[in-house]
Amino acid sequence: MLEDLKKRVYEANMLLPKYQLVTFTWGNVSEIDPETKLFAIKPSGVEYEKLTPDDMVIMDLNGNKVEGKYNPSSDTATHLELYKAFPDIKGVVHTHSSYATSWAQAGRSIPCYGTTHADYIYGEVPCVRCLTKEEIEEAYEQNTGILIVNEFKRLEKDPVAVPGVLCKNHGVFTWGKDAHDAVHNAVVVEEVAKMAFRTELINPQVQPAPQELQDKHYYRKHGKNAYYGQGN
Amino acid sequence: MLEDLKKRVYEANMLLPKYQLVTFTWGNVSEIDPETKLFAIKPSGVEYEKLTPDDMVIMDLNGNKVEGKYNPSSDTATHLELYKAFPDIKGVVHTHSSYATSWAQAGRSIPCYGTTHADYIYGEVPCVRCLTKEEIEEAYEQNTGILIVNEFKRLEKDPVAVPGVLCKNHGVFTWGKDAHDAVHNAVVVEEVAKMAFRTELINPQVQPAPQELQDKHYYRKHGKNAYYGQGN
Amino acid sequence: MLEDLKKRVYEANMLLPKYQLVTFTWGNVSEIDPETKLFAIKPSGVEYEKLTPDDMVIMDLNGNKVEGKYNPSSDTATHLELYKAFPDIKGVVHTHSSYATSWAQAGRSIPCYGTTHADYIYGEVPCVRCLTKEEIEEAYEQNTGILIVNEFKRLEKDPVAVPGVLCKNHGVFTWGKDAHDAVHNAVVVEEVAKMAFRTELINPQVQPAPQELQDKHYYRKHGKNAYYGQGN
Amino acid sequence: MLEDLKKRVYEANMLLPKYQLVTFTWGNVSEIDPETKLFAIKPSGVEYEKLTPDDMVIMDLNGNKVEGKYNPSSDTATHLELYKAFPDIKGVVHTHSSYATSWAQAGRSIPCYGTTHADYIYGEVPCVRCLTKEEIEEAYEQNTGILIVNEFKRLEKDPVAVPGVLCKNHGVFTWGKDAHDAVHNAVVVEEVAKMAFRTELINPQVQPAPQELQDKHYYRKHGKNAYYGQGN
Repeated sequence: MLEDLKKRVYEANMLLPKYQLVTFTWGNVSEIDPETKLFAIKPSGVEYEKLTPDDMVIMDLNGNKVEGKYNPSSDTATHLELYKAFPDIKGVVHTHSSYATSWAQAGRSIPCYGTTHADYIYGEVPCVRCLTKEEIEEAYEQNTGILIVNEFKRLEKDPVAVPGVLCKNHGVFTWGKDAHDAVHNAVVVEEVAKMAFRTELINPQVQPAPQELQDKHYYRKHGKNAYYGQGN
Repeated sequence: MLEDLKKRVYEANMLLPKYQLVTFTWGNVSEIDPETKLFAIKPSGVEYEKLTPDDMVIMDLNGNKVEGKYNPSSDTATHLELYKAFPDIKGVVHTHSSYATSWAQAGRSIPCYGTTHADYIYGEVPCVRCLTKEEIEEAYEQNTGILIVNEFKRLEKDPVAVPGVLCKNHGVFTWGKDAHDAVHNAVVVEEVAKMAFRTELINPQVQPAPQELQDKHYYRKHGKNAYYGQGN
Repeated sequence: MLEDLKKRVYEANMLLPKYQLVTFTWGNVSEIDPETKLFAIKPSGVEYEKLTPDDMVIMDLNGNKVEGKYNPSSDTATHLELYKAFPDIKGVVHTHSSYATSWAQAGRSIPCYGTTHADYIYGEVPCVRCLTKEEIEEAYEQNTGILIVNEFKRLEKDPVAVPGVLCKNHGVFTWGKDAHDAVHNAVVVEEVAKMAFRTELINPQVQPAPQELQDKHYYRKHGKNAYYGQGN
Repeated sequence: MLEDLKKRVYEANMLLPKYQLVTFTWGNVSEIDPETKLFAIKPSGVEYEKLTPDDMVIMDLNGNKVEGKYNPSSDTATHLELYKAFPDIKGVVHTHSSYATSWAQAGRSIPCYGTTHADYIYGEVPCVRCLTKEEIEEAYEQNTGILIVNEFKRLEKDPVAVPGVLCKNHGVFTWGKDAHDAVHNAVVVEEVAKMAFRTELINPQVQPAPQELQDKHYYRKHGKNAYYGQGN
């Protein structure tokens, strides 16, 4: 079932090593089918070199495995909470990509220092707190998703305009309109994390890019007046 | 028309991923034909892997598309202003290359710390200010070009001796005697940006290279007494 | 003799250049056969490009060469002490991998700043002191192994839970349940060394990850309640 | 003439891009024939991709071209001074490799922070001053060589034990028992420059490795009691 979905999710997973976002098995991609509300996700701990489209695991939004010979990614419950709360996103990526994870380990949101960032992400990439001991012990992966959702609500952030988040002392989640787009955003977050790291070392007093420049670049590529690319 | 020009511009664009100056579509190269005053430029938002010589867009210096099935790069108006104001340059490159863009995000010109820099660029690579809200809203890409031109005039910089500029919070433009030479300068700016970053971390009190050393290296490769290479 | 062991040790050695953990011949891998108490190790100073399984040297735990046309790695005596003192480890790796060695040169243990680290290593990667002049002159490589063993005892660290160590001003040793697993841990140590370096530059006041998060990730992958991967 | 020498020098030059020590043509390798006192060197400004063994230029120690269709490297006069003053070295390399050049731009010698360095270089890699205006104008490349030689004498450094030098605001020269060995030392200097950079950022108060450890590692690989490798 859902062979096309599994193929797309497989291909999106294979982009993670291509873009050097993962070491070993430290990442996973999923995509949800809007009709059936089922999502395909990478199996847990299977090496990328051995992965095939058939290895993808089909899950429902209650966390039940619908199809697949493997256990789903251990981060499945986080993906699931994001799909439930953010209906406009159809793909989710989790990685420990090196620069973004360094910001997460440092417990800092990534400021918007330039147009590379503003072209894809409106405002900073937020870093959410660690889970409490109770949240960890109760349901670690699910509570990670719930925390992200609650923080986006509290900060009044639109998940379409801010397609990623850092989890303190952990790693990064990104999302998008499908699995491929979510991987694209994972590459963007890693690249802006790298440049923001260097930017602060070059100028420790640096301030975020002016708001009007952020607005210009974001809306040059998004929304009804976008003019970047070849249109649709 | 201008098949040779389109081929050269295509090949120069393909050097950007080869030299790891671009992620996704974040860069573009153009070259002007001195006879017809037409220039060829990369189409907007088309992936490098899918690019062909025929995809290049031919523009005139009034900003009209003369030939091409795609929209030209969204940065076309910046290229155009540079060609109009700097008659000695025939190729222009724009990238978000990682180290140079980090300096741009930091809002700092790249000092000349050594002969790698002095061999190709006379003095620092200047970083020009952000556009004002009004300049952004009026004509963002065109005003970026006009700002670069005005700053070079104000700073009395010769665009042949200083073949690149950083745009604050944005990225880098370089140029040269043709598209290929402009890409060469883009590689040089990225490399000197990388080394200047490390130089300052190794010695926070570092000063620019002595003027006589800068002069020696620049004029060893440029001007009538140059003796580097095989002559012409 | 021990053809399978030599082949495994050869393959594990060849992973060092694959994962970019070595320059030239600056690394070596060994694995012990639990039946015979013999171990196979890379010959000293032989280039990876020329290495074959037959070049592996078979040693006993008294430091005698049992088979092999080459001298064993100059670090053989260190491997030997680790095998004698840590009966649960079957593979050992030594490298000068760049980030881990930079921490060793800095004389600092690598703090656990996140779950990438906690997934594989329980607590910090300790950095042991330099040998004294007497220890160096008496038996440098053997005393390196004895120092590691004594420090693990003094710090009450379980070598299975802490599968690596930094030697001050020198490099890194890692180990595991076989040669391949020891290489896996060498990759992990290098990756966490890299991210810890960046983490401290992003936030100089950073603290280690909360203990409950470290516990969660370590025990999610290790011990009787592990649920990461496909089980065994 | 000297076909073997030209072939070896060609091959050694081709190692520079292989080990990522050069961008474009920013490097050159030579080797001297001890019988004839002639040396082969890379031609000036010729791209590595187009280089052939026949393109190597044969020079004598008076700076006369003996054979070759191209101009020799613009740094030829520096190589020549090193061969004249250091009779035990037979190969010389010049690069602008990124980390070593960053130390040169910072005007600092590279301290010996660990055994990776001590295995090949006895004590710090010295950074010599810039040439004066007069020295530059009189004979830049020759005076660069004379300065290196004089500084090694003044500092009482043995060029065999210290096979490299940084030239302030410029780049790095290394040497060795032949062209290939000189390239090997160029890789070592770049690697220790990289690790020393990171070491100081991890621990700004770091001190050089203890002298007894430096001695142990240097003499483990060099001199009559060496026991690393397979002997001769």
